[in-house]
Amino acid sequence: MNTFGDMFRVTVFGESHGKAVGAVIDGCPANLPLTEEDIQKELDRRKPKSIFSTPRREEDKVEILSGIFENKTTGAPICGIVYNKNIRPKDYEEIKYKPRPGHADLVYRLKYKNYDYRGGGRASGRVTVGHVIGGAVAKKLLSYTYNIKIIGYTVKIGKIESEFNYYNNQEIFNNESAVEELINKIENNPLRCPSINEKEMEEYILKAIEEKDSVGGVVEIVILNLPVGVGNPIFNKLHAELGRALLSINAVKGVEVGRGFKSSEMFGSEMNDEMYFDDEKNIKFYSNNSGGVLGGISTGQPVVLRIAIKPTPSIGKRQRTINLKTLENDYIEIKGRHDPIIVPRVIPVAEAMVAITLADLMIKSGFIHPCCL
Amino acid sequence: MNTFGDMFRVTVFGESHGKAVGAVIDGCPANLPLTEEDIQKELDRRKPKSIFSTPRREEDKVEILSGIFENKTTGAPICGIVYNKNIRPKDYEEIKYKPRPGHADLVYRLKYKNYDYRGGGRASGRVTVGHVIGGAVAKKLLSYTYNIKIIGYTVKIGKIESEFNYYNNQEIFNNESAVEELINKIENNPLRCPSINEKEMEEYILKAIEEKDSVGGVVEIVILNLPVGVGNPIFNKLHAELGRALLSINAVKGVEVGRGFKSSEMFGSEMNDEMYFDDEKNIKFYSNNSGGVLGGISTGQPVVLRIAIKPTPSIGKRQRTINLKTLENDYIEIKGRHDPIIVPRVIPVAEAMVAITLADLMIKSGFIHPCCL
Amino acid sequence: MNTFGDMFRVTVFGESHGKAVGAVIDGCPANLPLTEEDIQKELDRRKPKSIFSTPRREEDKVEILSGIFENKTTGAPICGIVYNKNIRPKDYEEIKYKPRPGHADLVYRLKYKNYDYRGGGRASGRVTVGHVIGGAVAKKLLSYTYNIKIIGYTVKIGKIESEFNYYNNQEIFNNESAVEELINKIENNPLRCPSINEKEMEEYILKAIEEKDSVGGVVEIVILNLPVGVGNPIFNKLHAELGRALLSINAVKGVEVGRGFKSSEMFGSEMNDEMYFDDEKNIKFYSNNSGGVLGGISTGQPVVLRIAIKPTPSIGKRQRTINLKTLENDYIEIKGRHDPIIVPRVIPVAEAMVAITLADLMIKSGFIHPCCL
Amino acid sequence: MNTFGDMFRVTVFGESHGKAVGAVIDGCPANLPLTEEDIQKELDRRKPKSIFSTPRREEDKVEILSGIFENKTTGAPICGIVYNKNIRPKDYEEIKYKPRPGHADLVYRLKYKNYDYRGGGRASGRVTVGHVIGGAVAKKLLSYTYNIKIIGYTVKIGKIESEFNYYNNQEIFNNESAVEELINKIENNPLRCPSINEKEMEEYILKAIEEKDSVGGVVEIVILNLPVGVGNPIFNKLHAELGRALLSINAVKGVEVGRGFKSSEMFGSEMNDEMYFDDEKNIKFYSNNSGGVLGGISTGQPVVLRIAIKPTPSIGKRQRTINLKTLENDYIEIKGRHDPIIVPRVIPVAEAMVAITLADLMIKSGFIHPCCL
Repeated sequence: MNTFGDMFRVTVFGESHGKAVGAVIDGCPANLPLTEEDIQKELDRRKPKSIFSTPRREEDKVEILSGIFENKTTGAPICGIVYNKNIRPKDYEEIKYKPRPGHADLVYRLKYKNYDYRGGGRASGRVTVGHVIGGAVAKKLLSYTYNIKIIGYTVKIGKIESEFNYYNNQEIFNNESAVEELINKIENNPLRCPSINEKEMEEYILKAIEEKDSVGGVVEIVILNLPVGVGNPIFNKLHAELGRALLSINAVKGVEVGRGFKSSEMFGSEMNDEMYFDDEKNIKFYSNNSGGVLGGISTGQPVVLRIAIKPTPSIGKRQRTINLKTLENDYIEIKGRHDPIIVPRVIPVAEAMVAITLADLMIKSGFIHPCCL
Repeated sequence: MNTFGDMFRVTVFGESHGKAVGAVIDGCPANLPLTEEDIQKELDRRKPKSIFSTPRREEDKVEILSGIFENKTTGAPICGIVYNKNIRPKDYEEIKYKPRPGHADLVYRLKYKNYDYRGGGRASGRVTVGHVIGGAVAKKLLSYTYNIKIIGYTVKIGKIESEFNYYNNQEIFNNESAVEELINKIENNPLRCPSINEKEMEEYILKAIEEKDSVGGVVEIVILNLPVGVGNPIFNKLHAELGRALLSINAVKGVEVGRGFKSSEMFGSEMNDEMYFDDEKNIKFYSNNSGGVLGGISTGQPVVLRIAIKPTPSIGKRQRTINLKTLENDYIEIKGRHDPIIVPRVIPVAEAMVAITLADLMIKSGFIHPCCL
Repeated sequence: MNTFGDMFRVTVFGESHGKAVGAVIDGCPANLPLTEEDIQKELDRRKPKSIFSTPRREEDKVEILSGIFENKTTGAPICGIVYNKNIRPKDYEEIKYKPRPGHADLVYRLKYKNYDYRGGGRASGRVTVGHVIGGAVAKKLLSYTYNIKIIGYTVKIGKIESEFNYYNNQEIFNNESAVEELINKIENNPLRCPSINEKEMEEYILKAIEEKDSVGGVVEIVILNLPVGVGNPIFNKLHAELGRALLSINAVKGVEVGRGFKSSEMFGSEMNDEMYFDDEKNIKFYSNNSGGVLGGISTGQPVVLRIAIKPTPSIGKRQRTINLKTLENDYIEIKGRHDPIIVPRVIPVAEAMVAITLADLMIKSGFIHPCCL
Repeated sequence: MNTFGDMFRVTVFGESHGKAVGAVIDGCPANLPLTEEDIQKELDRRKPKSIFSTPRREEDKVEILSGIFENKTTGAPICGIVYNKNIRPKDYEEIKYKPRPGHADLVYRLKYKNYDYRGGGRASGRVTVGHVIGGAVAKKLLSYTYNIKIIGYTVKIGKIESEFNYYNNQEIFNNESAVEELINKIENNPLRCPSINEKEMEEYILKAIEEKDSVGGVVEIVILNLPVGVGNPIFNKLHAELGRALLSINAVKGVEVGRGFKSSEMFGSEMNDEMYFDDEKNIKFYSNNSGGVLGGISTGQPVVLRIAIKPTPSIGKRQRTINLKTLENDYIEIKGRHDPIIVPRVIPVAEAMVAITLADLMIKSGFIHPCCL
């Protein structure tokens, strides 16, 4: 099951240390302006850049094989691939028989028998190159048709919470230039956290690195300019599809929409978003506790999502594990090249998954023509 | 999009004040013993029973129209329906033009133009009769083939947390008779909360009722006896599908697996579940922080999920809203028959959605034969 | 797999001698005027009427359980059911152990173990009540939005060919009143054959009845007013989807589009439909050998399909079979109530399958809004 | 809609004169031995070879990018690509504005606006490279698990019928060495026709070539060793899915199963396949008129299919068409490199589509484990 979406469909393929990773995007309507640069830009955002990320460096140069003619989509499937270059399968000899705690090594092996253990194979974060390729096409489609923006940022690193989040700063999201400024701030910060206590977070991570340990965090994603009426009631709810998309990203252990778990502590009279007509008789809400979705359908307000990201399972610290060759209990100290924290690198992937989900739902809800713009 | 599942598929239909509600279950393998009683039992669990739930009382008698022969499934689709009897469309004249805050009235109307507003129509909790019918078949299938148990219970009401939850009481879930005792305790409690501070919760709700307000809460769901290897990596992850299923239930605003949001605060060395061989060389884990799933695939440990349920949006308290007839701002004090808290009634529905998801995934993962037991 | 369609989906259920047969239609956009009469009309066309059909007489009164509000669709799933009344399971005691040659009895039993043999159970033509309910909704949608007409008629009974068919009478299909006249002629003929040699056909069948035998035939279906651009290239071709829909009807053993098998005998220069601009610069074709579809996409010309229907397998003549109880070779002389020819009764079912397929494709191709008209 | 299959899924991509063509195969169970040679072998069968096919010569060297580890599948998606090399877009300048009669040029342009006209772009037979890659994996899976063989051959060229076909030569298909001999004969004949009048056919084609015209034909496909019980009743019938798969191939205008259109001329007593127990109490049939399928489910007998292939639309003869630039009526004499007959080259593609369909149905029917062999 490597395809996501029903009408706008992204099929991803590839392994960490195989020949290539990539994606086929099917169901993108014709006539959308699209170039390799549109995709490269997003792949570059996904690359490890700082001391907080893996030392593996890949050029990640995308090659589009199909579906584009004269710089516009044709309605035919778009295949984009990235050849793996910086491969070091040797690094993984140890994990061949010693599954890493917190990682999918063991269950893959039990389920599939033939497990490409090199760098985690199919279970590696590297396969999200395909997600990002698909997401880049979806983002272009959403931006071109409805000026939709998907903005992800870190709101928590380990136990350190950022003072910046949607509910503290709603006014920013109503102001186009403030949004642009926010995006710049996010992209120029190594943790993608637009916070005043960002230094404290960095120190927190550095300390964990020193101890050969790893750190998790929370990411918030806000969707702007989504029209009213996207999503279907019952089994194809906007937030249920977005939730599935985000839970599909490795390391995500929880997802919230709007006030999320906090809403369970509120009274109905606090939680309900009351409505009014403004002077031009437009329907408005006094608040956005729902996070832009009611009954599975978008309300026209910003959609607000949050995901919990567990600490990277690959750590240098000595851990107990089993040895499938000797059938004895054993220890592992993971070498290889790993991210001590993946939170900032999850953001472009999460945005990609959100974009793919929205592209699919907007076609299915009749907002974007399925064949031709 | 009223169908859930790919191989085990449940299609639900019906409105709150229409003729009937029900479901068609397609893809249930032949030869499963199944009677109307199996389904009735679950529908009875869903019924409002206490002072904490709506005064609308329905017999909810299920009628199976197809797919069963000599008390066993035939592989043909199973249609189960429940005729609506206790209908009072009059109660809803006011909301015809005044959408209820926090409810889907407004977005349904904007999306579909022709909105059956009576009792919320399709957006009513009443349609979960169909979910429960589908879930009852799924539960029977899971129980018959693998003795799988799905146990939901309340862990929080408003701001009051129960001291009982999976991580505080893991030993209970390893002991078959303790599990039976737990289930009895849950089912005999009006809030489905096996907690010592359950009285405090009741008072909390009664106070809200007095103030014509409503209350939310958190439900935990534990899946026992799920074998290793259920779920697919990448886009059909066990917990992503379960998350989608649970987010499909009205009022659910967040979902967690395992340590959930708490995992974002942990270090890798705390979060990772280390492994060992026991004396019989079975693979075991020292902990279950992952909540029974790694890389989207079940580990064989209990699966642990939690959902956040917002307070019921329908409250008697005066709220601001708009009047779509007069096009003026207006007020609403909702009458009709409503649950001041839906948390305990969500539990059978949540279990049903989990069961449907698991039945589908176990067929797709090759654990249950798709055609015939 | 009892659901047909992706965006406009029909799920059918029920057995020949079970409680009820029916269908759930999901994905029909809101605001379509629809009443029980729209469906009843098509069910009445499906009923056995003449001496050429089964003596089993059912009222076939449809009851809509959901999805309609104030005589229009709401976007919610529409469930329509027909209770079975004229049931005589006794008639089928013999086939309990003696599978009928040419029928699905044996393979159902081998595949599903628990086989509802009464009247063929799920394999009975009776289940097409569900197809026709779904088709009636689809027809209404197609007619309401694009005035699309789907016209089926018999062109061959056994070895006797009708002189009437699309390629002999193309001019009729370009003339609205001639089309209405044709439809009347078809509906008033017991064989649904608008032919001068229709009497010869009747005698052919009567002779077969006398010999306790059965007869097959060929049906042609013409679709009018389908706009250019319906269908997707590669794997969702208009004629491939229509072909699958028609091959899903029991007894259909072949399907053709346009010139069909005859095209294999033609030269390219004969087969190709040349184009021209008419005086208003509209694009026109000199011929319609393609049958209204090129590269899987509709051309705007009438779509022409033909299906081969085998003789009814249930015959009174003595046939060799096996006895699954005695495990001996045996004979069977089928009693029960059967159609000596199903060709005319297949027509409303074939039209229904065509309509469902078109409704789905037109939504997927962006011609009909998926949510709301 | 460039994906075929539900559990075994093939997604194809690429254009005639784009960078590459290829396929992603998802849902192939792990542990299947598979190498590039397995795929190359089938691609080589698809290549033009004789004077009866296009002079465009491509190496068609496949490169597997993912999903294989230590020469076996891992359960991860398999991406195979073929770079286009022998590209001459110049040849197609004329058709930029003059759509070719009988070809999809016009409808693509109307549907998608941005049409890659070079060599027919996405509508070219070249994209079937992807089909064949997918089919090669499916064939290997079917052969490895059940020794299933799919054998296609020409039974008619234009008006010249071969005396060889399944119903004339049933005994051959029951004899393993005779089958091997037959396959050799087919593969060594430029028309893939194991017939004594094959020379007559060649002359027929040469004459058409001389007249700058093209020729069609009929292909028969026989499936051996398919077990009883493959396929689902109602909407996922074995022959309906196979029919759709075959109608998805460009130029196919009709499909038959078993006696096909001939069955409509038979009496029930002739058509029905009677059954008996052989000496070992195995269930046998006296005939195979059904073509190996009853009620949509395989009977265990050979499955027999036939497809009608229209003459290649691209011909050198002068034809009338429209000019979309001048908006005048015009003429076209197609240059470029084209097959005067595609019948023999359709065969590997048809076998591929059959294989993909069977792989999918056998997983869905529980014959092949969905995850791991």
